[in-house]
Amino acid sequence: MFIGIDIGGTNIKIGLCDSKGNIFAKSFFKTIKERDYSLVLDDIEEHTFKLIKNHNALNAIEGIGIGIPGLTDTDNGIVSSATNLGWFNLNLVEEMNRRFSKRLGNIPLKIANDANCAALGEYRFGKDINCSNMILITVGTGIGSGFIIDKKLFVGCGGAGAEAGHITIQTDGELCNCGKKGCWERYASASALVRITEEKISTQPSMIISKLIERSGKPNGRTAFDAMRLGDALGKRIVDEYIGYLSTGIISLINLFHPEVIVIGGGISNEKEYITKPIQKIVDDYIKGSNFYPLVKIKTATLGNDAGLLGAAALNM
Amino acid sequence: MFIGIDIGGTNIKIGLCDSKGNIFAKSFFKTIKERDYSLVLDDIEEHTFKLIKNHNALNAIEGIGIGIPGLTDTDNGIVSSATNLGWFNLNLVEEMNRRFSKRLGNIPLKIANDANCAALGEYRFGKDINCSNMILITVGTGIGSGFIIDKKLFVGCGGAGAEAGHITIQTDGELCNCGKKGCWERYASASALVRITEEKISTQPSMIISKLIERSGKPNGRTAFDAMRLGDALGKRIVDEYIGYLSTGIISLINLFHPEVIVIGGGISNEKEYITKPIQKIVDDYIKGSNFYPLVKIKTATLGNDAGLLGAAALNM
Repeated sequence: MFIGIDIGGTNIKIGLCDSKGNIFAKSFFKTIKERDYSLVLDDIEEHTFKLIKNHNALNAIEGIGIGIPGLTDTDNGIVSSATNLGWFNLNLVEEMNRRFSKRLGNIPLKIANDANCAALGEYRFGKDINCSNMILITVGTGIGSGFIIDKKLFVGCGGAGAEAGHITIQTDGELCNCGKKGCWERYASASALVRITEEKISTQPSMIISKLIERSGKPNGRTAFDAMRLGDALGKRIVDEYIGYLSTGIISLINLFHPEVIVIGGGISNEKEYITKPIQKIVDDYIKGSNFYPLVKIKTATLGNDAGLLGAAALNM
Repeated sequence: MFIGIDIGGTNIKIGLCDSKGNIFAKSFFKTIKERDYSLVLDDIEEHTFKLIKNHNALNAIEGIGIGIPGLTDTDNGIVSSATNLGWFNLNLVEEMNRRFSKRLGNIPLKIANDANCAALGEYRFGKDINCSNMILITVGTGIGSGFIIDKKLFVGCGGAGAEAGHITIQTDGELCNCGKKGCWERYASASALVRITEEKISTQPSMIISKLIERSGKPNGRTAFDAMRLGDALGKRIVDEYIGYLSTGIISLINLFHPEVIVIGGGISNEKEYITKPIQKIVDDYIKGSNFYPLVKIKTATLGNDAGLLGAAALNM
């Protein structure tokens, strides 16, 4: 049995699972990141033990993995920088080892970036994967990414690897928080889709979109997709432009990694075939045009919110 | 002792070397790619044996590696597509094994893409490397690339990996041979530098550049750098713009891989610190601005034309 811990800026999820990805029990509580970090870690310790004890698994735990929203030095077990938590240069493995060893003895403990954990989770336990090289992109406020290379999680130098959201797709384009212009996530994140929707409707009126916005209060990442499905031409134009940006970054990743599978996660993956089909077509056309490249399968994520937790657990499998 | 074979569209180089990267002897001959491929392979067989025999190394050969200008399926020893040679779906390892085994017995034989071989060569035997994650970009007519991840050559799915020249840096930009718009190599290859130089001088006259072109016949990849060194303002503007494009792709690669070292090879690397210094500054400013990222060292290649040959030999080390 394995423990997976997914630390987020708002909530912390802990799961007790087996090596096949079955989750037997979950614990869920508020991070309250404003507290001293040691109080958060104490909470994690308590919830983990409760979970283990309630399932009589005290002697069955083979390892504990933790996913962190930030840069992690996986080799040394250090959280280098998790801005969202306010944790910097924190030796998390040492801190948690001290806490866990009291009742669990010397147990394997590993940490990794949360997007990397999600990628490992989808790779190991997602539906219809079966490949050696896979990329997960998580499309939300920004674009996160995790890479499986040669069946292993790729963490890059110092565990900082794979920030696909910050590859440039438009030199001198929109300014990004990272300080650079034209980052992929400025064009292809869910937030970018909302911005594109707002821009377009300010100059091109659409009755259907207006009605949708009346209902939801303001445009969101679903507005253009919903409008398109209702037959709205502007909705379709917005979706097409957005899919174009998403595909541009995906094709850059394909040129670099030639993965067999690209999995799209995050809120946008709820659009299912409305995003996978057009992207698959653009990708296929490009690959076939350039001859003899291996084909790449575009899929949406299948584990939802459990991907990070299962991937964290899988760090020790 | 190891044999490294570097097959190019024009020439073939064969080297006899040791595991420290010392080259004891080299053989060099024309590919004459218009011939049937089997005649080219016969030539390689003959030159390899001559090299080995002349150095009394018949019983000392531990492995043979071959670099190919094209897509290679390294696992199965197949050249999938080498347009430049006209070789497609060629089982090169089988073909060469048959030839070599006559006099060398059952010897380890591996193939890889030539840019990947060059990366492996620079990684193993280049000056001042010492790292686990390195990227080589070869800037010439296009931009080739090879990736060392976790001390190992990364070949991607089906050996097709790491075509960094085709990451998009300008959505809807210049059309590339690959069928896509805005590829990095359309802006940052040596050919792109020549194009930028031609464009700029057609609208902004420069006495210094005019004189340089008079001497060389037409603008080349050195023209703008030479003009800049002679104090020419237009030369400097061209170099700055070009360095900007080169840095844009390099920063995308850093965001994805966080390598410790990026090595720039190809003709442009002759500019030495005139390219490494400004790129290093742009990269440092970006990394420092985004906080806690590991720093990346920008270097020029040190093995010149031997990188591919040494890397091919290193496939078996």
